Amino acid sequence: MVQIIDDKEIEAFFKTLKTRNSVSDGKYLSIVKDIINDVIINKDKALEVYTKKFDDKNFSIQNVEILKDDQEKAFFSLEKEMQEILIKAKDRIYDYHMHQKRNTFTYKGEFGEILGQKITPIENVGVYVPGGKAAYPSSVLMNIVPAMVAGVKNIVMCTPRQGGQVNPLVLACAYLCNVNHVYAIGGAQAIAAMAYGTESIKKVDKIVGPGNIFVALAKKEVYGSVGIDSIAGPSEILIVCDKSCNPKFVASDMLAQAEHDELASAIVICDDLKTAKEIQKWVETFYEESNRKDILTKSLQNYSKIIVVSSISEAIKLANIIAPEHLELAIDNAFNYLDDIQNAGAIFLGHYTPEAFGDYMAGPNHVLPTVQTARFFSPLGVDDFIKKSSIISFDEQSAKMLADDVMKFAKQEGLMMHALSAKLRGV
Amino acid sequence: MVQIIDDKEIEAFFKTLKTRNSVSDGKYLSIVKDIINDVIINKDKALEVYTKKFDDKNFSIQNVEILKDDQEKAFFSLEKEMQEILIKAKDRIYDYHMHQKRNTFTYKGEFGEILGQKITPIENVGVYVPGGKAAYPSSVLMNIVPAMVAGVKNIVMCTPRQGGQVNPLVLACAYLCNVNHVYAIGGAQAIAAMAYGTESIKKVDKIVGPGNIFVALAKKEVYGSVGIDSIAGPSEILIVCDKSCNPKFVASDMLAQAEHDELASAIVICDDLKTAKEIQKWVETFYEESNRKDILTKSLQNYSKIIVVSSISEAIKLANIIAPEHLELAIDNAFNYLDDIQNAGAIFLGHYTPEAFGDYMAGPNHVLPTVQTARFFSPLGVDDFIKKSSIISFDEQSAKMLADDVMKFAKQEGLMMHALSAKLRGV
Repeated sequence: MVQIIDDKEIEAFFKTLKTRNSVSDGKYLSIVKDIINDVIINKDKALEVYTKKFDDKNFSIQNVEILKDDQEKAFFSLEKEMQEILIKAKDRIYDYHMHQKRNTFTYKGEFGEILGQKITPIENVGVYVPGGKAAYPSSVLMNIVPAMVAGVKNIVMCTPRQGGQVNPLVLACAYLCNVNHVYAIGGAQAIAAMAYGTESIKKVDKIVGPGNIFVALAKKEVYGSVGIDSIAGPSEILIVCDKSCNPKFVASDMLAQAEHDELASAIVICDDLKTAKEIQKWVETFYEESNRKDILTKSLQNYSKIIVVSSISEAIKLANIIAPEHLELAIDNAFNYLDDIQNAGAIFLGHYTPEAFGDYMAGPNHVLPTVQTARFFSPLGVDDFIKKSSIISFDEQSAKMLADDVMKFAKQEGLMMHALSAKLRGV
Repeated sequence: MVQIIDDKEIEAFFKTLKTRNSVSDGKYLSIVKDIINDVIINKDKALEVYTKKFDDKNFSIQNVEILKDDQEKAFFSLEKEMQEILIKAKDRIYDYHMHQKRNTFTYKGEFGEILGQKITPIENVGVYVPGGKAAYPSSVLMNIVPAMVAGVKNIVMCTPRQGGQVNPLVLACAYLCNVNHVYAIGGAQAIAAMAYGTESIKKVDKIVGPGNIFVALAKKEVYGSVGIDSIAGPSEILIVCDKSCNPKFVASDMLAQAEHDELASAIVICDDLKTAKEIQKWVETFYEESNRKDILTKSLQNYSKIIVVSSISEAIKLANIIAPEHLELAIDNAFNYLDDIQNAGAIFLGHYTPEAFGDYMAGPNHVLPTVQTARFFSPLGVDDFIKKSSIISFDEQSAKMLADDVMKFAKQEGLMMHALSAKLRGV
């Protein structure tokens, strides 16, 4: 099902990989734009129309908010064990993101002036959670917890009632994170409501969270009026391994990635053909245990390979080109290679660090840059929920030291009022 | 020319302000898309056609690169004093941004596992510099220096030859910053070349720098294939002041902002009518010294006001709603209010800190969030030229402590291969 190839066949495979991200959005875009404009103009009334049409025929704007009581009930309706797992996951994610926190700094410059950078949490954040089967409670935690750590005052969640209800695990997570408001709306109309505000939904400053094509396009459309997280593409893993690896482990990690969706990609790069063959065999074996054989068949056949190369350093070079969302180094002394990794969303080192740990509760965020964007994008984190303001303060003495140079520079650029403004401080 | 209003008239003025950002791009977008597609397909050949057409009729792809020698000549052709000012500006900007640098961190988690975050510079960055009069050497420094501090290996610059040549101050800055390559191309075609690569221009990972509507739309189009900085809107200042201020200073700072362009906005909020009137008078007086009276007339009449309010704390409240690009606190003890500032690109404290200092060489970046986006965007900085990768490493012992919980969580989400992958590490 998954093919073994050598480095001569890599280029062709890379070309195939690139096709994964070329979803045509032409036909959806105009629908999304219409919905957004309608919500801007008709607010709650438009929200009601679309929500009845797409998600919940019994919807009325009066019951748009899911109250704390219902969230609490959802949490305590879970088995005790699952309650504890959610708490543990939240705590571990919280603890990791606390390490990302940054402080305002100031310092004295050469003339005694004060310079610095102020860190302020974004005030209002909206978290989108898809409805039905696409609602992953782990994603809810991964999107909300960094905002909590950043100090965001007002966190709201939008998620549609589908078949009359919201996934209780999602509500349980909202309860656990003490989200300020949960609204039972979804789709492009929910994004528009959060971006522009309605009578019932207060406008936010930034929107995060995954969604279907309508949600993704709506986020792109409202970008600029509000901030958004990056638009996620299909998921992928690259596992670099050698003889030291456990082929069962590697095979299970390939399958875990491949079961996400038909466009998922699971790539192994190995410097040993025998190991490659064992991995291939275990993939076939474990496949039988899956409840998602249709998805697995497609992602394994189309976008997954076991690539045999001559050395681990060649594998690392390829890893930096692929710039994978998830990179596993299933080799002894994996830390020796950490400095060489240029491009990867998350790096899993050693044989006992399956990517699945990162998906749920290792601590780091599972919202990661996909399809080669790890060259310039980063995991979701506390930085996404703060903004920086520069701090500059000169007094009379220090201003005199800079005024003349600024005046001359401004004149050189032809900005005479800038020059005047500097000159007045230099007299 | 600039009106004094009270707080009852604020709402109407805010509505006017919001219209500044509604540039219609309909007619340009299809042109830009065509240019980008042409460059993707025909590469150098397309670059040549568009560059001849729009910027430089003598252009040939053979002379696309502006060599180090020519950059050096441009630098040494400047007056000695200007050379020194550029060096001083670069050094001060460099020093400030060094304070923004962050390090990779790792720590041990509760089970002895290693968690952390790796900081890696983006490898290839393209800096766009507009041609002709729109080329500000200060902007060149502000865009390049943070990339240098971040450790970007390959920094290229694109700027068109207009009237047969590139602004020598721009080349001087390229020389000073030791830019790897300078290419004499501009417009949407330059953005496309950097985003997708041609025979002569190597593909980059991220593009920054200001430009006209074609450049801005092209950056938006290529976003996702490469990273971009945020798209800048028209510039603005908000000056909060009281009786303690020097009305001449405040007036000159209003004019310095207003001279940028017709859409620029200079707002003063003052708690004292007499001071407001003096500021108004000085604006009229200094106006006569300007070489840009046409621009000033429009930006002052349309988008600038002196607003009289009852207290400084009311002024601060309004400042947080306006979320200005530049905020001056022209009051005694300005630092007392720093904690109350939620939304501002850069904060200038005290009477001797004109915004013009920040434009040139105070140190902090002058590329700042505009038109209310300081609610969620930040100044350009070192963070824009690095990316983060999560680090996760469990050993056999620590993996056992987490495997069971991950397995159960994965089962709850219906992801059986995730569950298997975790289970195998827990045995």
